[in-house]
Amino acid sequence: MSSPISIRVRVPMNIAFVKYWGKADKTEMLPLNDSVSVNLNDLHATTEITIIPNSEDSDSVKVNEVDFPCGEGTRFFKVFTEFRRIAGSRIQSPFSIKISSRTTFPVKAGLASSAAGFSALAYGLGKSVNMKDSEIARLARLGSGSACRSLLPGFVHWDASKTSPTDDFVFSLSSNQDFQSSLLAFVFIFNKKEKVVGSSEGMSRTVQTSEFLKYRVEKVVPDHVRGIKAAIASGNFGIFAEITMKESNSLHAVCLDSFPPLWYLNNASFEFMDFVHKINAEFGEVVAAYTFDAGPNPVVLIQRKNAEFFVRNLIELENFKFRFVSQESNLSSFDENLKKFINQPDTDQCEKIEVIITGVGDGPRIC
Amino acid sequence: MSSPISIRVRVPMNIAFVKYWGKADKTEMLPLNDSVSVNLNDLHATTEITIIPNSEDSDSVKVNEVDFPCGEGTRFFKVFTEFRRIAGSRIQSPFSIKISSRTTFPVKAGLASSAAGFSALAYGLGKSVNMKDSEIARLARLGSGSACRSLLPGFVHWDASKTSPTDDFVFSLSSNQDFQSSLLAFVFIFNKKEKVVGSSEGMSRTVQTSEFLKYRVEKVVPDHVRGIKAAIASGNFGIFAEITMKESNSLHAVCLDSFPPLWYLNNASFEFMDFVHKINAEFGEVVAAYTFDAGPNPVVLIQRKNAEFFVRNLIELENFKFRFVSQESNLSSFDENLKKFINQPDTDQCEKIEVIITGVGDGPRIC
Repeated sequence: MSSPISIRVRVPMNIAFVKYWGKADKTEMLPLNDSVSVNLNDLHATTEITIIPNSEDSDSVKVNEVDFPCGEGTRFFKVFTEFRRIAGSRIQSPFSIKISSRTTFPVKAGLASSAAGFSALAYGLGKSVNMKDSEIARLARLGSGSACRSLLPGFVHWDASKTSPTDDFVFSLSSNQDFQSSLLAFVFIFNKKEKVVGSSEGMSRTVQTSEFLKYRVEKVVPDHVRGIKAAIASGNFGIFAEITMKESNSLHAVCLDSFPPLWYLNNASFEFMDFVHKINAEFGEVVAAYTFDAGPNPVVLIQRKNAEFFVRNLIELENFKFRFVSQESNLSSFDENLKKFINQPDTDQCEKIEVIITGVGDGPRIC
Repeated sequence: MSSPISIRVRVPMNIAFVKYWGKADKTEMLPLNDSVSVNLNDLHATTEITIIPNSEDSDSVKVNEVDFPCGEGTRFFKVFTEFRRIAGSRIQSPFSIKISSRTTFPVKAGLASSAAGFSALAYGLGKSVNMKDSEIARLARLGSGSACRSLLPGFVHWDASKTSPTDDFVFSLSSNQDFQSSLLAFVFIFNKKEKVVGSSEGMSRTVQTSEFLKYRVEKVVPDHVRGIKAAIASGNFGIFAEITMKESNSLHAVCLDSFPPLWYLNNASFEFMDFVHKINAEFGEVVAAYTFDAGPNPVVLIQRKNAEFFVRNLIELENFKFRFVSQESNLSSFDENLKKFINQPDTDQCEKIEVIITGVGDGPRIC
C-alpha cells in the first residue's frame, strides 16, 4: 500500500475477577498465572491510527491530547517494532505511525488504562493490515499484558499455559446466556492520582520477594479459575461474587507480603469493602462484589435487579458523597429508580466521588 | 493459709517479631505456630492481687480504675477457675480474689495490653502460692495466649509443638550478650481507639478462611523462626530487622486474605512503613525495623547507636508530629542528643503522636 491507512477503533478496558500479578517472561509478557476478566462497556479508549507509507517522519502518540514518548525503550516502541516486523511487507517502507487516543476515564490510576490503550492500539494496527486475531492479541500483550483481555467480547480467559508466540492464549468463556446482560459494573473514582509504584515494577517486586506468591500461583489461582468459570457458565452470581472478592484480597495480600510492601488500597478502600460485606450480610445473600486492581478505586459487580438496593445503601454512607454518571447507550435498560439517581442535577458544591455505571461484555469495534 | 495474701507484681508487655496468629486449640489456647518476642521494659502492667481466705465475696477486677466483668464466660473467670483448681488446697476455701491493675499504655488498641495484664495476673497468682513456672505460664496462656511470652526475660520463644498442659512451652532464647542491651524500641501511639475486630475473633476468621494461612504456618513461620533465632544468637541486627518487617507484613497479608478481610493497618501505618524503608535505603543498611500487631500502631526496633539518626529523620516527616516520652530508669544510657528530644518542653498546642522510647528484655518482678 502506498496511500495513508486510517482506522478508528473503540476498545473497552477490562476488569479482572481472577487477577494477573506476576510475569513469567518480561519480554514476551507471559503471565505467571491465568486470569479472567470482562470488558466495561463505557470505559473505553477511542483511538485513531494513521499509517503513512513512504514517510520518514517520527512515529507519534497522543493520549488525551498529551504527547507521549514513543521512542526506543518505551512500550509503544516495542509494539511498533513488532508491528513493522509482521506487517512490514504489506506497507511501503519506511512508514510512520501516528496515534491519537482518548479515554473516558483517568489514566495511570490503577484503572487498567494502559490495558485499554494498548488493546486499541493493537486492534487498530492489526485490523489495518488484516492480521490474525492471535497476532493482534500478542501485539496487545507486548504493550501491556492485560491488554490482550480487552480484545474479545464477554467473559475472557487469559491462559498462562500458552507460551508459544503463535498460540491463541486468550479465549471467550462460555457463559450462562442471561448472566452477562444481568450484570452492571459500578466504577468508583476514589483517587485519580498516579500510583506510587507502577504495576510492572510492583509485579516484579512481588515475584522476587513475596513468600505467598508461589502458593497463590500454584494453588489459589487455579482453584479460583475453576470456580469462577463454573459460576460464569451456570450464572451463579453468589459464587462468582465471592471468588471475585477473595481474588482481589488475595492480590493485595501478596502485594503487602512483598518487600518492601506494596499497598494500593487506602482507608477509603477498606471502609468501602466493609460496606459491601455489611450490605451483603443485611440482604442475606451476596448481592455485590468489589474488586480492586493496583489502585484504591473499587469496581463493584452487581445484578441489575439489585442495583437500586445497592445505590440506596450507598448514598447513606457517612464519609462518602457520590455523583453517578453513565454513558450506557441503552440507559433504557436501567431500572427507573436507578435512572433517577443518574439524572439528578448536581447542585451541591462539595467534591464528590464519581461513579460510572456501565454494562459489561462489549468487544472492540471499528468506528 | 487463712490470712489474706497480698502481692504486687510488674510485668511488661511483649512485642512479637515472629507473630502468633491462629489457635490450634481454643480452650487450651495453643497456637498454630511458634512465635518469638521480647518485653518492652517501660510498657507494663502493675497489678495488685489480694486473695481473701474464708470469703464468699465475689471476685473483682479493676483495670486502670475501671471495673471489669470477671464472672462466668469471661477470660478472668477461666484463669480464676484454673487457679482455684491448682492452688485450692493451699488456701482456705471458699476464697475471693481481688485484682487491681494499672497499665502505662492504652488498652485494647492492638498493643498487647491483655498480654501484659494476664501475664501479671498469672504471675501474681502463681507466685502467691509458689506455683511452678510451667504452671504460671499455662495460667497466663489461658487468659491471653501471648501473655505467656511476658513471663521470661530477654528474647522469648513460644513453642507451638508443646501441647501437653504440663509441658514447658515458653523459653528464653540465648542471645548475643550485647545485642539485647544495644536495642531500643520506639512505640508509636497512632490510635488509642479499640480495634473493630478483636484478635481472638480475627484469628478465628483467618483460620477458617485464609487461603495463605496454612502455607504461612507450615513454611513461612518455621523459616522466620530459624532465621531470627540465628540472628538473635549472633547479634545480626540487619537480618533480625528484615525478618521482623517481613513477619509483620506476612501477618497483615493473611489478615487481608481472610474473608471478610481484616485490616488493622491504616494510611498512617503504610506511610510510616514507607518512611522506615526510605531511611534504611538512605543509610545504606537496615537501621530500623517496624512491626505491627493487630492495630495501626508501629513499634520500631533500632540500635541505640542509630536512634538519633532515626529521630532526626522522624521529626522531618511532613504529615506527623511527635511527642517523645520515656520512663526508662536508666535514661543515662541514652545518647545526649536523644535525651534532648525527650526532654523538650511541649509548648506546641497541636495534637501529637506519643512515642514511648524504651529498652527491651526486662522480666516480670514482684514489687
